[in-house]
Amino acid sequence: MTIALLAAAAALVQATPAPAAAPAAKPYDALPGDWVAVPDDEMLVFTLGNGRRFVVRLAPSRYVPVHVDNIRRIARAKWWDGESVYRVQDNYVAQWGDATEKKPLPAGVVANPPAEYSWPAFDAVATLSKGDPYATKAGYSRDGWPLATNGREAWIPHCYGMVGVARDLAPSTGSGGDLYTNIGHAPRHLDRNIVIVGRVIEGIDALSTLPRGTGGGLGLYEDPKQYVPIVSARLASDLPAAERPRYQYRKTEGPRFAAWIAARENREPPFFTVPAGGADICNALPPVRKTP
Amino acid sequence: MTIALLAAAAALVQATPAPAAAPAAKPYDALPGDWVAVPDDEMLVFTLGNGRRFVVRLAPSRYVPVHVDNIRRIARAKWWDGESVYRVQDNYVAQWGDATEKKPLPAGVVANPPAEYSWPAFDAVATLSKGDPYATKAGYSRDGWPLATNGREAWIPHCYGMVGVARDLAPSTGSGGDLYTNIGHAPRHLDRNIVIVGRVIEGIDALSTLPRGTGGGLGLYEDPKQYVPIVSARLASDLPAAERPRYQYRKTEGPRFAAWIAARENREPPFFTVPAGGADICNALPPVRKTP
Repeated sequence: MTIALLAAAAALVQATPAPAAAPAAKPYDALPGDWVAVPDDEMLVFTLGNGRRFVVRLAPSRYVPVHVDNIRRIARAKWWDGESVYRVQDNYVAQWGDATEKKPLPAGVVANPPAEYSWPAFDAVATLSKGDPYATKAGYSRDGWPLATNGREAWIPHCYGMVGVARDLAPSTGSGGDLYTNIGHAPRHLDRNIVIVGRVIEGIDALSTLPRGTGGGLGLYEDPKQYVPIVSARLASDLPAAERPRYQYRKTEGPRFAAWIAARENREPPFFTVPAGGADICNALPPVRKTP
Repeated sequence: MTIALLAAAAALVQATPAPAAAPAAKPYDALPGDWVAVPDDEMLVFTLGNGRRFVVRLAPSRYVPVHVDNIRRIARAKWWDGESVYRVQDNYVAQWGDATEKKPLPAGVVANPPAEYSWPAFDAVATLSKGDPYATKAGYSRDGWPLATNGREAWIPHCYGMVGVARDLAPSTGSGGDLYTNIGHAPRHLDRNIVIVGRVIEGIDALSTLPRGTGGGLGLYEDPKQYVPIVSARLASDLPAAERPRYQYRKTEGPRFAAWIAARENREPPFFTVPAGGADICNALPPVRKTP
């Protein structure tokens, strides 16, 4: 068992934030100044009826302006209060919002925004050494987001914990009222077909441990009694200062982050005896940590 | 929500067996004769104290002879009975066996088998159109296993639901007494560093929904009271005929499976408006289904 733990420790660097390290013990360790606060208006706090909460960091408005603006409006209207998590499909998604599809959207919400699935500029400041079956290149934005590109357009890939907007058939792009997060292997086939609007940075297990639904072979909870109520959803900036979550993302520019990428692509001995020589972006997600 | 369901349906082909299709409606649909029974001695049935069970299909002996032989011996000695699932780490693994690391192995079990992490021949009968950051080529064995290769050696990749053998530092390769399964994004960095001995083909949610552990940042259950007891572990071939699970894997040779691969790499309209043009092996796992 001992070693499986080391393996886990390696994975842990990906799964959760690296511990604060000052002074740096390894070339890839972050220095205190490498951590940047996630702005309060980028954090959306969902409190569930089972006492758990999860926090979504919203994607940059430069990538998905209309959908993210919608989500802020939906949260400020307290539209999600009283709604629920109504679908949990193993190795796929947990989905929440209005299961009835009948609740009117708040004023000011764009019912069908543009398809903000990708954008022309791949503005990564650091990249992985290899592409993957879904992208010729993948890397990291300056503000800690994973990015993928095919050389013509760029997008945020569908990795574990990323939050997407459920939609109907095109030309529907989804309003943002119904959201899902990936709780299994990255469903990258959804890249460029659905808009990614955020990433769960706290409490993903509040969703990933929920019982799987049995409806339609799609993980839908067949009995509304199974729905997990959403007590409230609030932007951290709309919460009293004392109740706001505090998170930091790691700077993705500079030699220490480049060394972090290299360490992700070639895991270290003594546990790892054969380095992979590469990593896929969803197995090397940019570090985020609770503010120490 | 409607459409997210279609997206799910697409993923479902991967996540769980495709429904029986006779006559074939699409070029990628399986015909009844495309399904082959999983041999009883390849299925290991774990019954948990919470009333749930999960079934592991054991990897082919031609790939991992000693570890798989060990596992059959360990099961026949009822060594796992009374042991537990003692570690569940979000987006990584659920691990079970002897948390004390003190229980003597059954007679005939090789304490430290050869490192059966890879083998020379990539004997895939069908391949994906693209490689990935971990392999120059990936595909499918004739008996329904995912395979990866770097052109020099081949191995079973660490995909969701694959079962590996926990080990200590090299030269330890793990006896097979402590096993784990991947419950998150494929930790492909473990490829060629740990032996894969099986795949969970039933009841993965009995593991993926367990509360995450908090020990050591590694998902260990800190209080033994949290351990999930293993009531029994039996090879299906050692169970009364009436109690044996019945599963089938899909033939991976021929035009229908080739069409299935193409459909995995380029998901169909109307939900999908942009085909990916490729897929990674862990997002296109070979279909297995309960025998109709």
